Amino acid sequence: MKKILVLGAGRSSTDLIHYLISVSEEKKIKIRVGDIDIEMARQRTGNHPATECFALNASDDEQRRNEISQADLVISMLPALMHVAVAKDCIAAGKNVITPSYVSDEMWTLEAEAKSKGVLLLNEMGVDPGIDHMSAMKIIHHLESLGAVIESFESFTGGLIAPESDDNPWNYKITWNPRNVVLAGYGGTAKYQQDGELKFIPYHRLFERIIPINIDRYGSFDGYANRDSLKYRKIYGLENIPTLLRGTLRRNGFCKAWNVLVQLGLTDDSFEIENPNNITWRQLTASFLNLKSTDDVVNGVRNDLNVDAVSMEKLVWLGIFSDEKLDIEKGTPAVALQKLIEKKWILDSNDKDMLVMWHRFRYQLNGKRIELQSSMVDIGLSQMNTAMSRTVGLPIGIAAIMVLEGKLKLTGIHMPVIPEIYIPVLNELEKFNIRFVETTMEL
Amino acid sequence: MKKILVLGAGRSSTDLIHYLISVSEEKKIKIRVGDIDIEMARQRTGNHPATECFALNASDDEQRRNEISQADLVISMLPALMHVAVAKDCIAAGKNVITPSYVSDEMWTLEAEAKSKGVLLLNEMGVDPGIDHMSAMKIIHHLESLGAVIESFESFTGGLIAPESDDNPWNYKITWNPRNVVLAGYGGTAKYQQDGELKFIPYHRLFERIIPINIDRYGSFDGYANRDSLKYRKIYGLENIPTLLRGTLRRNGFCKAWNVLVQLGLTDDSFEIENPNNITWRQLTASFLNLKSTDDVVNGVRNDLNVDAVSMEKLVWLGIFSDEKLDIEKGTPAVALQKLIEKKWILDSNDKDMLVMWHRFRYQLNGKRIELQSSMVDIGLSQMNTAMSRTVGLPIGIAAIMVLEGKLKLTGIHMPVIPEIYIPVLNELEKFNIRFVETTMEL
Repeated sequence: MKKILVLGAGRSSTDLIHYLISVSEEKKIKIRVGDIDIEMARQRTGNHPATECFALNASDDEQRRNEISQADLVISMLPALMHVAVAKDCIAAGKNVITPSYVSDEMWTLEAEAKSKGVLLLNEMGVDPGIDHMSAMKIIHHLESLGAVIESFESFTGGLIAPESDDNPWNYKITWNPRNVVLAGYGGTAKYQQDGELKFIPYHRLFERIIPINIDRYGSFDGYANRDSLKYRKIYGLENIPTLLRGTLRRNGFCKAWNVLVQLGLTDDSFEIENPNNITWRQLTASFLNLKSTDDVVNGVRNDLNVDAVSMEKLVWLGIFSDEKLDIEKGTPAVALQKLIEKKWILDSNDKDMLVMWHRFRYQLNGKRIELQSSMVDIGLSQMNTAMSRTVGLPIGIAAIMVLEGKLKLTGIHMPVIPEIYIPVLNELEKFNIRFVETTMEL
Repeated sequence: MKKILVLGAGRSSTDLIHYLISVSEEKKIKIRVGDIDIEMARQRTGNHPATECFALNASDDEQRRNEISQADLVISMLPALMHVAVAKDCIAAGKNVITPSYVSDEMWTLEAEAKSKGVLLLNEMGVDPGIDHMSAMKIIHHLESLGAVIESFESFTGGLIAPESDDNPWNYKITWNPRNVVLAGYGGTAKYQQDGELKFIPYHRLFERIIPINIDRYGSFDGYANRDSLKYRKIYGLENIPTLLRGTLRRNGFCKAWNVLVQLGLTDDSFEIENPNNITWRQLTASFLNLKSTDDVVNGVRNDLNVDAVSMEKLVWLGIFSDEKLDIEKGTPAVALQKLIEKKWILDSNDKDMLVMWHRFRYQLNGKRIELQSSMVDIGLSQMNTAMSRTVGLPIGIAAIMVLEGKLKLTGIHMPVIPEIYIPVLNELEKFNIRFVETTMEL
C-alpha cells in the first residue's frame, strides 16, 4: 500500500479525495487527509476504509514534517502561501508534491534543490491554473506540428453559476473564495501583449476593457484581463507570438456594474472604515461621492459615474443604497463589500455551479488565416461535487496516481505544459465529461 | 557655545542654516552640518566660522550616535524614513530633536520613552506640515476665544512656480522632490469629513474632485484632497467640526491634465516596464490604450478619456506622444514619468518658486455665519533661497533657538499646534515677510 497525504480538506478537495478513493483498491493506495477541522476532513472522506483523517495545524513544523516523512506522495491543498513551507519539507524528505497553485517567485528559488534531491514539485495542476494550460498546450503543440504560425492566443476561465441556478440580476454567485471575488484584479496592473505591443491595464480601468465572448448553447460572457499574461510567453513556448492574453470570465453585463463599485472605491482594501457598524450602506456609498446629502446617493452614483439602467438595477439589488448597517465590526470597504456579496450571492443548497473555459487561437497555415475556438463547460453535480471541485481536484488526483506509479519521471518545478502530463490527464478527464469542444473557421 | 547638529543639507536646509548663522553670534551657537555629500554641506554653510561640515553616513549607527552625543540640539533634515532612528538615538542621549516631517506611527511608539527621558521630539515644523498648522491654530484658538462655532475648515498648500517664472502650459515646475510630485496621492485613499459625513476619494478619482480656489492678486488654483485629514480633528482639537479638509494646491487646469496621466496608468509604480530604453513615449502611452496601431495614440487618448483641448495641449507639450525613448534603464511607468517631468518642468537658474497657503473657515458667531479666508504667498529670493527652503527652514530655525534657550519646556512628541510654539514662530516669520492676509465676509 502506498500512502498519499492530502493537506487541506476545503471545498476544492472533495473531488480529489473522491477520485483517489475510487481508485484506491485498484491502485492499492491509502489516503491520509489532514485539515485544521477534522470534521471537514471526515466529511470529504465519508470515513471510507481507504482513508484516515487527522487534525492538522499546518503551521506546526514538526507535525507537518512528521506527516510528510510517512507519505509516498504529498498533495497540498492548503492556502497558496503555505505551499513553499510544504515544498521545503518535501524536498528535505525526498517526497514528490503536487499543488493547484501558481508557482510563486519564492517557489522558484527551490528549483535547483528539488532537482538535486530528485524531487518533483508539480504545480498549477487544478483549474486556472491547470486545465487551461493543458488544453491550450495540446492545441499549441498540435498547431506547431502542422507548421502553423500562431498569431494570437486568448484564454479565459470563470467560476460561475449554472444556468438552472442563475436567478439574480448579476448572474453570479459565490462558488469559490469570496475574498478573491471582491479583490479580483486589485492592487496590480494587468499585462498582456497585443499585435506585438505590450499592453497594461491599471485596476481602475480593468472592468471597462471587456472582451465580449459567445459560447454556443451557453450565451454571452464578459472577458477581462487577468494579472500578468506576459510570463506565459515563455511557459507556453510562444516567445514570438504577437497577441497573448489570459483572462477571467463573467456573465455579460457583470463587469459594467462591478466597475461602478471599483470606480466608487467600494473594493478599496487599503484603509479601515471608522466605526463601520454605525453606518449604513447608503452612507458608505455616499462617502465616495461629493454630495450635500445622502438622500441623493442613487442619483449621485447614476450621474457621477454615468451608470446605465441595467447596471443601476444590479447595484440597487445588491444593496449599496440600503439603510442596513454594514454588519462588520472592523474592516476596509472591501471587507464590508465581501460581507454584502456573501449574503446576496449565496449559493442555495440546490444550486449548481459552472466552470467555463474558452480559448481562441488565430494562426496561419498553408496560406490561410484560421480562427480556432475551444471551450469547456462543466456543471457541478451537487453542492459537494461542484464544477470547481471537479476541475481543480480531478486533474490533481489523476496526476497523483501517475506520479505514484512512476509514470512521470520528472524532477524540479513543473507545470502541466508538457505532453507527458497533459495527454493522459486530459484523456482521463474526458471520462468525467470534462471535455473541450473545438470549432474552426477561415478568417 | 551651544552646538546645533543639522543632519542633512539638501535644498530645504539652506534657509535653516542661513538663519542659524545669522543669529550665531548673538545666540552664541555653533552649527555642525552633516551630509552624505560634504560639498553640499559646505555650499549651505559658505564655510562661515560659526559652522563646521562633515561627511555623514546617516545609516552608520556609530557615527550618528557619536555626533548626536556631542550636540546640544539635533535637527533632522534627513529623508523622513530616517527620523525614527535619529529620534531613538536622541532619546538615548537625552537630546532634543526637531524634524519637518509628519509624525509616523512608528514615531508615536517613542512617545512614552521620550517623556520619561525628558526629551522633546518636535515634528511637523516646516511647511505642510508646519506653518499650515501654526497659522490655522492661531485662527482656531482666536475664534474659540470669541465663542465662535466652527463649521468648516479647509486648508490647502502648494509648492509652485512664481508668476514671473511661469512659462509652460502646466504652470508648474519641479521645486521640490520630483518623486513626490509624480506619486502625489498614489497608493492611498484621501479621507476627510464634509457636513458631518466621512468622505473617501480613491486615487483614481483624486484629481477629478477639484475645489476651485481664488487668491487675490495671484489668480485661480485647483485644490485637491491630501491623504488623511481625519486625524487632524484630534490634533487641531476640532473633534466635532462637520467639515475638515486638508489639501494640495496646483494652478488652475493642472489637475484635469494630470488626471489623464493617472487614468492612463502613467503614474503606476507597481511594475517594471520590460526593456524601457527600447520603447518610445508614444509606445508607452499606447500600451495603456486598446488600440490597433500606435499611430492613433493622440486621438486614442482624446477619445478614450474624453480630454479637452486645453489638457491635450499640456499632454502634447509634456511629450507623452513623442518618439523619444523613455530614457531609463529600468523602472516603473512612474519612474519614466519622473524622468520626463524632470526635463520638462526643470527650474531655470533664474526661476523663482512660490509657496502658497490658503485656509477657509466658516463659523457662527453672534447669530451670524461668517467665512474667513487666510492666505500666505511666499516667493523665493533666488535658486538657493527658495520659498520652499524659507518656509521649511525658517520655522525650524526659529524653534531651534527657542528650544536651545529653554523657552519651550516640553517633552515627548509635539507638533506646532500650541500657542507656546506658534505665537513666537509666526511673529518671527513676519520679519521675513512670511505673513498671512485675512479677509472675512458674512454668508
